[in-house]
Amino acid sequence: MLAERTVRELIDAFASSDPTPGGGSASALASALGAALLQMVASLPKTRANSDEDRSALAAASQALIGTRNRLVEAIDADSAAYDQVVAAYRLPKSTDAEKSARKSAIQRALRTATDVPLGVARLSDDALKEARAVAGHGHRGASSDVGVAIGLLRAGQRGALLNVEINLGGIEDAAYASAVRSEIARLAAEAAASADASETLLKST
Amino acid sequence: MLAERTVRELIDAFASSDPTPGGGSASALASALGAALLQMVASLPKTRANSDEDRSALAAASQALIGTRNRLVEAIDADSAAYDQVVAAYRLPKSTDAEKSARKSAIQRALRTATDVPLGVARLSDDALKEARAVAGHGHRGASSDVGVAIGLLRAGQRGALLNVEINLGGIEDAAYASAVRSEIARLAAEAAASADASETLLKST
Repeated sequence: MLAERTVRELIDAFASSDPTPGGGSASALASALGAALLQMVASLPKTRANSDEDRSALAAASQALIGTRNRLVEAIDADSAAYDQVVAAYRLPKSTDAEKSARKSAIQRALRTATDVPLGVARLSDDALKEARAVAGHGHRGASSDVGVAIGLLRAGQRGALLNVEINLGGIEDAAYASAVRSEIARLAAEAAASADASETLLKST
Repeated sequence: MLAERTVRELIDAFASSDPTPGGGSASALASALGAALLQMVASLPKTRANSDEDRSALAAASQALIGTRNRLVEAIDADSAAYDQVVAAYRLPKSTDAEKSARKSAIQRALRTATDVPLGVARLSDDALKEARAVAGHGHRGASSDVGVAIGLLRAGQRGALLNVEINLGGIEDAAYASAVRSEIARLAAEAAASADASETLLKST
């Protein structure tokens, strides 16, 4: 599993010419790092005003971020596995009509998974960015640069995931599914921008 | 060393309430991932036009990216070490005038290192983004989403590093140094934006 390799080994694996791990797994990792940094700030003993309101808002954010982060870590491996399935499907035999038909079905199934996994990363990045509002508004001011880094990583992770959604969606023949996904990614990108902007404003507020 | 921990352990370490690793190390890691993805695309057997010109441009980019990536991986640990030194300096005794003076000098030295390390990450991110132009212009079109992800990670890594530069620079009393750093970070941010825009245009060009 990629998540069980050392950081140096994983970076070497990204740099190798092997097709996986690639940009989809890197995007999941970037968002996992962003969620982890938000959780760090939510867990600090100091809060913005050291009030009970701060502590309860940060405890709720921290609780939500644990699950989001764990699912993002799972997606590092899931994205590479999904892409490997796409490659394997394209390599299926295509000599007879039966083989052609089976190969086509396998490609469509694999592309669907390879779309669903980064779509999940984009959703999870959105979830984490919603928690960034609470962390920016209630977290210790001394950690504002950590919150800023987290927002940047979550937005880069989401954008990277959406690049992967779009690439795979291009090969999917189910028009209703493709249309639903396109609507959702527009919504996710808009929500992420709104959460990030609101969080940045809170970080700067006195 | 952070780079020798597993990915899962490092993400857990970012999420813990310990002050390090924090946003500076996460920024170095994000840029290292971006440089690694660019190197993957530069190493693929397929290139944009499968021409000798492509192969020689990509070989040069790959060579430059190896060094950049290795220095970014070193910065993951160097940033946390630098921040630990800042914390240690603030904790020095300050009962006598001699202690106060020694503590003040130690804080200034530590803040300088804690500024220089993320400034180095911002420079290295800029170097990698310059190579992104070659990779976007000469690399295999099938890997364009990987190049897009890499650009996003390098920009997030650079912006995160610059947030850390600014925070630490605020405590530095050497006005000439602070002024030189402020000029450089404005230049680095502008260069990174220009490289990213040029690369995105090349990715979309036919």
